[in-house]
This record gives sequence, C-alpha cells and structure tokens, in this order.
Amino acid sequence: MGQVAWKGLFLSLFDYKTEKYVIAKNKKVGILYRVVQLSILAYLVGWVFVVKKGYQDTDTSLQSSVITKLKGVAFTNTSELGERLWDVADYVIPPQGENVFFVMTNLIVTPNQRQATCPEAAAALCDRFCAVCAAGVKTGHCLKERDSIRGTCEILAWCPVEKRSKPKKPLLASAENFTVYIKNSIRFPKFKFSKMNVLATDNESYLKSCRYSTEHPYCPIFLLGNIVRWAGSDFHEMALEGGVIGIQIEWNCDLDKAPSECNPHYSFSRLDNKFAEKSISSGYNFRFAKYYRDAEGVDYRTLFKAYGIRFDVMVNGKAGKFNIIPTVINIGSGLALMGAGAFFCDLVLLYLIKKSNFYRGKKYEEVKSSSRKSLSSPTLNGNQSPDQLGGL
Amino acid sequence: MGQVAWKGLFLSLFDYKTEKYVIAKNKKVGILYRVVQLSILAYLVGWVFVVKKGYQDTDTSLQSSVITKLKGVAFTNTSELGERLWDVADYVIPPQGENVFFVMTNLIVTPNQRQATCPEAAAALCDRFCAVCAAGVKTGHCLKERDSIRGTCEILAWCPVEKRSKPKKPLLASAENFTVYIKNSIRFPKFKFSKMNVLATDNESYLKSCRYSTEHPYCPIFLLGNIVRWAGSDFHEMALEGGVIGIQIEWNCDLDKAPSECNPHYSFSRLDNKFAEKSISSGYNFRFAKYYRDAEGVDYRTLFKAYGIRFDVMVNGKAGKFNIIPTVINIGSGLALMGAGAFFCDLVLLYLIKKSNFYRGKKYEEVKSSSRKSLSSPTLNGNQSPDQLGGL
Amino acid sequence: MGQVAWKGLFLSLFDYKTEKYVIAKNKKVGILYRVVQLSILAYLVGWVFVVKKGYQDTDTSLQSSVITKLKGVAFTNTSELGERLWDVADYVIPPQGENVFFVMTNLIVTPNQRQATCPEAAAALCDRFCAVCAAGVKTGHCLKERDSIRGTCEILAWCPVEKRSKPKKPLLASAENFTVYIKNSIRFPKFKFSKMNVLATDNESYLKSCRYSTEHPYCPIFLLGNIVRWAGSDFHEMALEGGVIGIQIEWNCDLDKAPSECNPHYSFSRLDNKFAEKSISSGYNFRFAKYYRDAEGVDYRTLFKAYGIRFDVMVNGKAGKFNIIPTVINIGSGLALMGAGAFFCDLVLLYLIKKSNFYRGKKYEEVKSSSRKSLSSPTLNGNQSPDQLGGL
Repeated sequence: MGQVAWKGLFLSLFDYKTEKYVIAKNKKVGILYRVVQLSILAYLVGWVFVVKKGYQDTDTSLQSSVITKLKGVAFTNTSELGERLWDVADYVIPPQGENVFFVMTNLIVTPNQRQATCPEAAAALCDRFCAVCAAGVKTGHCLKERDSIRGTCEILAWCPVEKRSKPKKPLLASAENFTVYIKNSIRFPKFKFSKMNVLATDNESYLKSCRYSTEHPYCPIFLLGNIVRWAGSDFHEMALEGGVIGIQIEWNCDLDKAPSECNPHYSFSRLDNKFAEKSISSGYNFRFAKYYRDAEGVDYRTLFKAYGIRFDVMVNGKAGKFNIIPTVINIGSGLALMGAGAFFCDLVLLYLIKKSNFYRGKKYEEVKSSSRKSLSSPTLNGNQSPDQLGGL
Repeated sequence: MGQVAWKGLFLSLFDYKTEKYVIAKNKKVGILYRVVQLSILAYLVGWVFVVKKGYQDTDTSLQSSVITKLKGVAFTNTSELGERLWDVADYVIPPQGENVFFVMTNLIVTPNQRQATCPEAAAALCDRFCAVCAAGVKTGHCLKERDSIRGTCEILAWCPVEKRSKPKKPLLASAENFTVYIKNSIRFPKFKFSKMNVLATDNESYLKSCRYSTEHPYCPIFLLGNIVRWAGSDFHEMALEGGVIGIQIEWNCDLDKAPSECNPHYSFSRLDNKFAEKSISSGYNFRFAKYYRDAEGVDYRTLFKAYGIRFDVMVNGKAGKFNIIPTVINIGSGLALMGAGAFFCDLVLLYLIKKSNFYRGKKYEEVKSSSRKSLSSPTLNGNQSPDQLGGL
Repeated sequence: MGQVAWKGLFLSLFDYKTEKYVIAKNKKVGILYRVVQLSILAYLVGWVFVVKKGYQDTDTSLQSSVITKLKGVAFTNTSELGERLWDVADYVIPPQGENVFFVMTNLIVTPNQRQATCPEAAAALCDRFCAVCAAGVKTGHCLKERDSIRGTCEILAWCPVEKRSKPKKPLLASAENFTVYIKNSIRFPKFKFSKMNVLATDNESYLKSCRYSTEHPYCPIFLLGNIVRWAGSDFHEMALEGGVIGIQIEWNCDLDKAPSECNPHYSFSRLDNKFAEKSISSGYNFRFAKYYRDAEGVDYRTLFKAYGIRFDVMVNGKAGKFNIIPTVINIGSGLALMGAGAFFCDLVLLYLIKKSNFYRGKKYEEVKSSSRKSLSSPTLNGNQSPDQLGGL
C-alpha cells in the first residue's frame, strides 16, 4: 500500500501543471495588453539586443603597450644660441618613446649657472629685510646701488637666476612638421584577444610614407601640426606657452565578428585648460638642467625652462562577445517585465473599467474551508474585496 | 465560413487573458506573503535603487591626464658637498611632471668614478680566490696589505666603488615644506563627460596661495609633509630610507546631478611596506650617474644613489547615469523574486499548515481527458499528490 | 456600515491569493517541463553560481603601483670603446624603476658630435641639387671628390652624422643574466582590499637569493633571460634589434576566501611584432645624447642609438566578493527563465499534442459578462480560440 502511494507520488511529479487563465472578452484591456507586450518586445529586441548588444559579455579592462617614435629636424638661428640644429635627441623628453612624450617647442636658457650669491630677479625689491623667495635662499643682505633707497635681495642660488621674460615667438615653430609614429598593442585579457594598430598586411613603404588622415585611418604616422589642429588648438600659440594634448585610441571591438573588423579609432583633445589663457592651469612647462664640470672640478649647469607640447596617448577599449549569462539576464528581466505589464492591465481590468466588479469575481475564486457548500462554485458576489495589491 | 474563423481568431487575439487566482482566507499565510512582498519592495527601493543606484549605468574606465609641478628650494651644508642649494631641476626626477614623480631627499654621492681597477668594497674580503661580485668584474687578484693574511678582491669597475654607509640623517629634510601642484583632467568616455580638479571659477591668487586641507578640499596644491603625514608615515624617517606614497584621486560622479557636484576626493597611502623596516621590500632608492668628459676626452661620472619619496598619482573613478537597461534588469529581477516569494508562501499553504490538503485541492484542478464526467467540477479529494516542486 | 466595509477591505489585504493551476495528466509534457526545469536549475547553479561566481560583485578597476630594480654588471671589450664595465646606472633608462623600464643591450655610439657642416651619410648621393634629409638641414652644396660626377650633399647637422651600419652581435649579450626585482602593490578600491606580490612572511635571505620559476611562483625576482624565453623569443636575437616584452601580472581574487589565497599570476608576452622581422613594426630603439662642454664653452655631445629590451609591467586584476544584488539578479532572471520554460511547455500542451483542444478548454475559462448563465461553469467547448500568443 505504501509502495503504491510512493509510486503515485513519483508519477504525479510528471503531471504537468499549468496556470488556469480567465479569458476576459474585453477588447480594450486586451488591446492595451498587446500594446504593452509589443512595446516590451520591441525594447528587448531593438534596444537591448540590437543597439546595446545585451547578449554580449564585455571586457573594458584592456592591457595596452604604446611605443612612440618621433622624426624631424629643426634649424634655429637666434642671437643667444647662434645657428643651431635640433634633432630627436635634443627635443624629445624622455627619449624612450613611451606613451607620454614631450616635444620641446620653446626654451628659456640660463647658461653657466654656478652656486653663488647674486641679486634676486629684478621684480623682487627690498628696502632692508629680505624674506623667503622661490629661486634660492636669502642671505639677508639688501643689494642697493649707491644713493638708491630700494635694492634687490641677495640670494644664495644657482647664479645668475633665470630671467622672467618669456620669448615672444616659439623657437621650434617648425615642430609642426615633425611626425610621430605610434605603435599600440592591445590585449583583452578576458577574451585572450590581441591586436596592433599597425596593419600586418601593409607593405613597408606604405608605412614609411603614409600620414594619418580621414583617407588613411589605419596609418599610424601622425603630423604633429595635424594632431594639434584636430584637437582644436593653434600650433603656434601652443608652441609658445606649451600644453597637453590627449591622443585617445579607442578600440571598440565586436569579437563576434572577424578580428579584422576590430580597428582603432583615434581622437584628439586638449587636456590643459586652454580657455583660461592667463590662469595657472594653462600651458605646460618644466625646468631641467644639464650639468657640466669645469677644469677645476667645480659643477656648473645650464638651466632650461622648456615649454612644449606633451602628448598623452591614452588607450581605451571595450570588447564584447556573445555570452549566455547576460543574454539570460536580459531575456529573463524582459519576461519579468511582461509580468509587470500583466499586473498593470489586471489593475485596469479589475478596478478601472465599468464591469470590473464582475471580472474581479471571475479572477478570484474565494474558498473557505469552513463552508464546504461554497466550494463547488466560485463566489460571484459583488462585494469582492477591492484589494489594491491583489494580483501583485 | 473560413473567413469567419479567421476573423474570430484575429479578434480573440485581443481577448485579455488573466490568471485565475484562488483566495485562501488564511490570515497567517496572507500576512506572511505581505511581509515577503514588503521586504522585497524595501530591498528593491531602499537598497538597489536608493543606496546602490541600480537605475544607473556605470562607467569605471576613465581616461586621465595628470600634470604635476613642484616648488621649493633647499639649502644644505655638508662636509662632502659644501654649501649647496637644491632647486626643482636638481631634486625632481624625471623633470617632466608626469603622474609619477620622485623627490630626492637623501643621497650617497660617489664623485669622479672612472673605469679602472680598484679594491672592492671593504665588506668583501678574500684570502686568495675572488668570485663574482655586484659592482664590477673581478680580475682575480687579491689585494693584500703587507703582512696581512686576508685582503680585498681587485675588481674592474667604475672606481672608486660606492661606499656602503648610509647617511644617518636625510640631506634634504626640508623637502617637507615643498609643495606640489597636481592638475588632473578626467574623461568618462561612455558618457562623454570631462572635468578638471582645478576649479574654473576660482581666482588665480587663490590657486597660488591655497594649500589642500579639509577646509580647502578643492585646492590642488599639496604640502609634501602633509601628504606623508596623511599617509600615516613620518617624513624624516621616510626621507632617510625612501618610500612610495600613493596619491589616490577618486572621482565618484552621479551624472544625473549637476556637473559641479562631481568633485575629486583625495586619499593618501603608503605603497611600500613600511612595517618591514629592514626587509628588502621597504624603502625606495635608485642609482643614476652624471657623465663628464675631461680634457683628454676620457669619460668619468658621478654616481648618485638617490633615496627619496616617489609619489604615484593614481586616478580612479566611477560615473553613473540613468539608463533604462539596468533599471529594467533590477525591476525585472525584483519582480521575479516576488514570484519566488509567492512560491515559498505556496509551499507553506499547501504543505505546512493544517488545512493544506484542502487548499491543495482548490489550487490544483485535476483534469483527465478520458473521464469527461469529472470535468465540470474540480477534484476535491484529499489524496492530491504532495508534489514538492508543484508550483515552481 | 462604512466602518465595517473598511474593516473588511483591510482584512482582505491579508487574504492569500494563489494562482489556480490545472493539472494536465499528460506525462510527455510533464517530463518535458521537468527536463526544462532541471536544465535551468543546472545552468543556474552549475554555470552561473559555481563556475562564473554569479553571486559576486566584481571590481576590475584596480590601483597598482610598481617598483622595479635591476641588478647585474656587464663587461665589454670592443675596438671602439675599449675595456668597459656597464652597471645599472649605465644601462637602465630611465633609472627610477617604474613600471616601464628599458635595458640597453646594443649601441651605436657617435662620439664628439658638434654643430657643423659635413657630408651626409654615404647612402644619399647627389649630382647637383640636394633635397630635404633626415639628419640635418641641407646647405645646398654638393661635396664632390675631385673628378667624380656624383658627390654627397653637405648638411648642417650634429657632425659627424651617425653611421648606418648596425652591429652584427649585441654588445651587452650578458644582460641575459641580469635580474629584476618587481614589487607590485595593488588595491581594489571597491572592496578596500590591498596586497603586495612580495610575501610578508618570507625571510629576507630567501627574497635575496630566490629566482622566479614554476617552483617558486611567489618569488618576485626574475632573470631577464628567462623572461624573454618565456615570452617565446630568443634573447640574443632580441638583444641585437631590441624589442618590447610585456610582463602581465594578473590578480584574480576571490575575496570570499582568505586574503592569502589572492596571489598574482605572471605571464610574459612579446609586444612588438616579432614575426615581421624586417618591417617597421619590429624591434625597439631610440636615440639619446650626453652633452659635454669643452674648455672654450662649446657644446658637443655623444649620440647613442640604443637598442634594447623594454619591459612593460602591466597589472590587471579582478576581485569578486559576495553581494546581494548580482545574486538576486541572477536568481530572479533564472526564475523568469523558468516562466519562459513553462510558456514553451504550454505551447506544446495547447497546440502540438493530440488532445490540445481539450487542454486549451480547461486552461482558459471564458467569461462573458452579458450571459450570466454561463458563469457557474467554465466553457468547455472545443472551439476555444487557437491564440498563439495566449499565455505569454
């Protein structure tokens, strides 16, 4: 007997249970529900799957390696430096060709600085006492010319101190014609996908002579003047005061397609605040020195205040590939949303239309265990509870 | 007739079908279900939407550009170097002002090194044979003083070799008062949103005189001593042995609000292992050399073992903006969770309470196509299958 | 009376409403539905939760700081440079030990360059006119030896110009035995979790003598020759022409486990295109100069074209930790998927099997408000609408 019960229990596991529906022959609510269903379906298919590629797993943390190499020479003829030729080893800092590189375009040179005492820059006047100063340490002496009331503080510093006057025009304005070759390897670790921005199939001569432009979107050689122009700046103005240009390389790859369709997209923007021309946040410059030793073994140096353009190559990417998890999440939550649509239509049917009372009675079948006589037929009375959260 | 059938089919598409519910007048299960519903609703609204902003799409891969600029001079007076002034060009390596910069605070100088043979550092004693060594290549000779049994290996190296003794106190302890100006531009590529940490509206004099503190959270100028203190370290101790400080800039932006509410938050931490004071993993130093050429054209160099503080500016950010997809996903899965709650309450109703047998009969209407007589009324017998997975 | 009605309304809120199900004693569809249920459950538990850890919130934007330190000396004896010893200060560029470092392995030295006019490199012949050139600015003169028809252009440049001939074998081939110590601190900002790749518990002597290998996976000291070999390249070939090696450090941390189980995983790959041996995209070199000043105060320089291996340490990571939101999303969408499974089985039951007509009649109870006589019993007629989208 027990065996029979267990057998029945086991067999009943394979009975199919399906929800019982009430067909409300109400065209208004029916049409409303179909509209809701179609909207959700359209959103799910059109927006989530086609536009947003909701069936894909994405990887946004890419590994990137950038190699840059500049080319170009500039010739200058100034009263200070005489005829001078500038090549890559002179104007690129640092020389290694990493993803951030600086091209010197302007220069304040203060040659033959030695550790000594000398008057501070002319701007800082003193009458008797001398306070802290930027370029060196004040000795406390006030260097006055004969008969004058005010003088200049004496400082212990690398003397002579740097002049404050900025050059009126950029020294290396011809840097506009320099080229930079940018080699970028990326890897999406989640999908184990690697690519380079240099086309493997192209012949070497093309890669030596091409220049990046809208006609040559996969040429990795850029004219500096073009980069600055595309970033919306004027090269000559920028060469004078310096600045920072961002070269964004964006890899937006759909790995469900062929690898050859995964290509970099370049964009250029100015990163220092170009609008605040006179503010502290515009321009880019830094100081460095070349150190020499004279025959007596005393160190002296040439101080350079270098103005120029720093280029930050910033690589950014997203790869998507079909994955079952986001697909299921999106389908599942779309279906759940249909349940919400049904709930909304139920509210309309049960509380907002004229015959709602009748439908409420049909949808909800009241059962009471105490009164067995009411069991065989559902209660149809109108005082069905107007339960707002009923069907949720 | 076929036309009529098709018309009926078409019209029936707009019949609204709604699930039939059984009202179980059982207050216990009813209250339980309401509690479950309210919990899920509270979780969905309170935690997912209000706290976690589940209605937003987030972008965590930001593009960032950092410009740093140091200010300050230090004066030292040692027996080795004499009176000497250190300015930015002397102590900042590399000079370009990138996101990683090093401030030299201590120094072992080995001047006038030339390629020659000389005895190895005193620590390495030999009696007769000389093995490999770190500073140069052993010639194999053992340099002994007269009458002594042990001597020192002769090596071919840059001679004289560097002394092993560390300075007892930091040379540039006054670096504590240097300031660094950190300029950070960020961009969230997904939302095409850019911002800088330098307030555009502030007057220039404020930006020249302010110092970052809790009272001035948007001032981008930091005192090195403060940075180290905020990172939980002692400047003098760190200046002696070197170390690495991380300056984290965090942009946590809610782009549904005004852009002016998207502000950076700074935090400071020590990145080298400060606890393991004597271990290989604490401190930070590196060697570099300045190369000179004497009148005869022979190269010589001054070797510097620089101890100091490396600052790594690490920018990190997250931006969120309303997006329909995560909103739908979160609402959808919350609703689906309510279905799970209903399933749980069904289990209670159908199997755990006293009258479960009766409710089971009401909920499940058994139909058999072979016995047409049972169709007009649901089966109400108690031996309904106790199916555990029934309603799932 | 109104009070009673409100009380009834309030009490009815706590009536439990449960969906009414129809049990279709059809084993085929029942088994089909159980199979669908089990598949979804297996997918949810096995794939989403166990394999993909769907219950975890993940953080992929880690903050990382890398310190590198090289060790090793090389001795060379060439006709150009004579006996020479190379130590860390000579061959590591830049010296600071950041995450990108370059080890010089080969060299073209052009000593004593001065700003002057000289013939261009022999390759560029001219008969009369001289066009643009890479190394300097053409003066326009054609330097011809007596009686020869063709000559060489005269250029204003750093003279003498660099020779084009590459060395046949790498100068610092012994760099293979140099070691690099890589110290990497990471932090997952979302979980406030920090760790280093240097084991805190290890004794100092182990960290000084160990070498990374499969037997010592947590030793942070790497032999350069091994790194290159693991990247699938030949050190001697790479030392000759230069190249870029990526050292990927991957942190894949399950923060629900103990922090000691969060360990780095190293992998090595070649980032420049090694296959295209003669192409523009292989190899790695750059030019830099050391500047000197002679007794007359005239600058001259030694130009170095450095070939070598650049190592890019790239840190990448993912941390997961239990979080209620993704858990709920995954469970919810799994449940919603079961609803989709039920819908599919409904389609089978209602339209594809033999007795589908009968089941359709049982599932859908047609109600019409106009004909009250049909209310007490559901309609059971076979011409129920064959509604394709019925149960959705």
